[in-house]
Amino acid sequence: MDVVTTVSEQGVTEQRVDFPGARGAVPGIVWLPEGASGPRPVVLLGHGGTQHKRTPNLLALARRLVRHLGYAAVAIDAPHHGERVPAEERGEDAAARRARLGVEEWRRRIFSASDQIVEDWKRTLDTVQAMREVGADGPVGYWGVSMGTRFGVPLLAAEPRVTAAVLGLGGVGPEPEAEPFRAAARSITVPLLFVLQWDDEVVDRERGIALYTAFGSTEKTMHVNPGPHVGIPQHEREEFERFFSRHLGTAAAPAV
Amino acid sequence: MDVVTTVSEQGVTEQRVDFPGARGAVPGIVWLPEGASGPRPVVLLGHGGTQHKRTPNLLALARRLVRHLGYAAVAIDAPHHGERVPAEERGEDAAARRARLGVEEWRRRIFSASDQIVEDWKRTLDTVQAMREVGADGPVGYWGVSMGTRFGVPLLAAEPRVTAAVLGLGGVGPEPEAEPFRAAARSITVPLLFVLQWDDEVVDRERGIALYTAFGSTEKTMHVNPGPHVGIPQHEREEFERFFSRHLGTAAAPAV
Repeated sequence: MDVVTTVSEQGVTEQRVDFPGARGAVPGIVWLPEGASGPRPVVLLGHGGTQHKRTPNLLALARRLVRHLGYAAVAIDAPHHGERVPAEERGEDAAARRARLGVEEWRRRIFSASDQIVEDWKRTLDTVQAMREVGADGPVGYWGVSMGTRFGVPLLAAEPRVTAAVLGLGGVGPEPEAEPFRAAARSITVPLLFVLQWDDEVVDRERGIALYTAFGSTEKTMHVNPGPHVGIPQHEREEFERFFSRHLGTAAAPAV
Repeated sequence: MDVVTTVSEQGVTEQRVDFPGARGAVPGIVWLPEGASGPRPVVLLGHGGTQHKRTPNLLALARRLVRHLGYAAVAIDAPHHGERVPAEERGEDAAARRARLGVEEWRRRIFSASDQIVEDWKRTLDTVQAMREVGADGPVGYWGVSMGTRFGVPLLAAEPRVTAAVLGLGGVGPEPEAEPFRAAARSITVPLLFVLQWDDEVVDRERGIALYTAFGSTEKTMHVNPGPHVGIPQHEREEFERFFSRHLGTAAAPAV
């Protein structure tokens, strides 16, 4: 792991790092309490489509988890996002890029990156757990909505170290090509908090409900709120924190 | 208001009272912080079918709201429940009574009591707001699931003093005779927390979702959990408390 920069602000140390990934270096961030030493729970943060590892909602959640619970938080750029945007597309606005590629090609490119980012996350977790400020035995959580759920479902299915997750703004339909994704959802058994926006213009209500229903977890809670895709109410951010606190514990008292 | 008994335990004073109701006295309970004097938010607690004003989940929630937030809490026996069970049916087990009456007659009797309990609640609130430990200007909440929602929806539609409510384990169907109930739901605009059990053997999943969708509130959150009708997970009790705290404030800092 190469540390590019380290900055501390209001009790939170943010390290811009390059993780060894499935295909070369993966640009990432590790947030820690300033002066952290011993092991602590860690939460992996998966950003949404067109976003990146330091997108405002991820940054706010990371700082909240570090400051309130003493956690470590980690984010990486997904393939084709953030610093992993192909060189020839740099500087192009994400919406413009999506319009140029077309929604179908855009989606195909994202979905085809699923295996790669699962592998990136597994290696990232290996690296992070080798840090003395995190440790190999502590609880691990995952948070990711929208594209963060599109990738989070196969990650959770493949990665037993993650023992609690917040997902949402994603769905699954009856079409045969969705079967591997549905099977992955069914295989997940860890506690889940799943958020849906009732007027989501991207994710059909029934597909969202179908994904919640598919999860194999005995403890799974769905939080539904009115409003569009980008519009999860502020108070749910507190719910995310409490969910992780309940299942992963805190730095002082990690869940066993 | 006739105070029948007053008992204090672990900081909570519980008064067994008779409220003046729509048709004679209504047996009720007022919970207050021990030694309470000035005004404070009050939450009305509506029990479920076959239950009563001091059923364990109501008692636990009342004590929690009093101890954690400094609230007043109030419960009354619904018609045909608790001390309002008809004299000739006293001593008969609720389940046996339901079996003897038949589910249809049981339901008819409950639904026909809707106007009466709405009037009982309005008069109860008049009485409670005349207490110096509650006051006429403080925020008012309502909590009631299952039958507590069957009656809570018309209450909220008719009672503008209630400014936030927890409802759940209830639904509405497309049948024409459900239209008044649906219209009442549509007319509600206060913030709501609505809980559903995904494997509810009493309330059909689609009917529950239809009721959530029908509410006119712009701020409404639905919490779905797996499990049967009687099986709301323990952690939702904390959610109830936080919901009221967010919308009604606390005794020290009531919502304006």
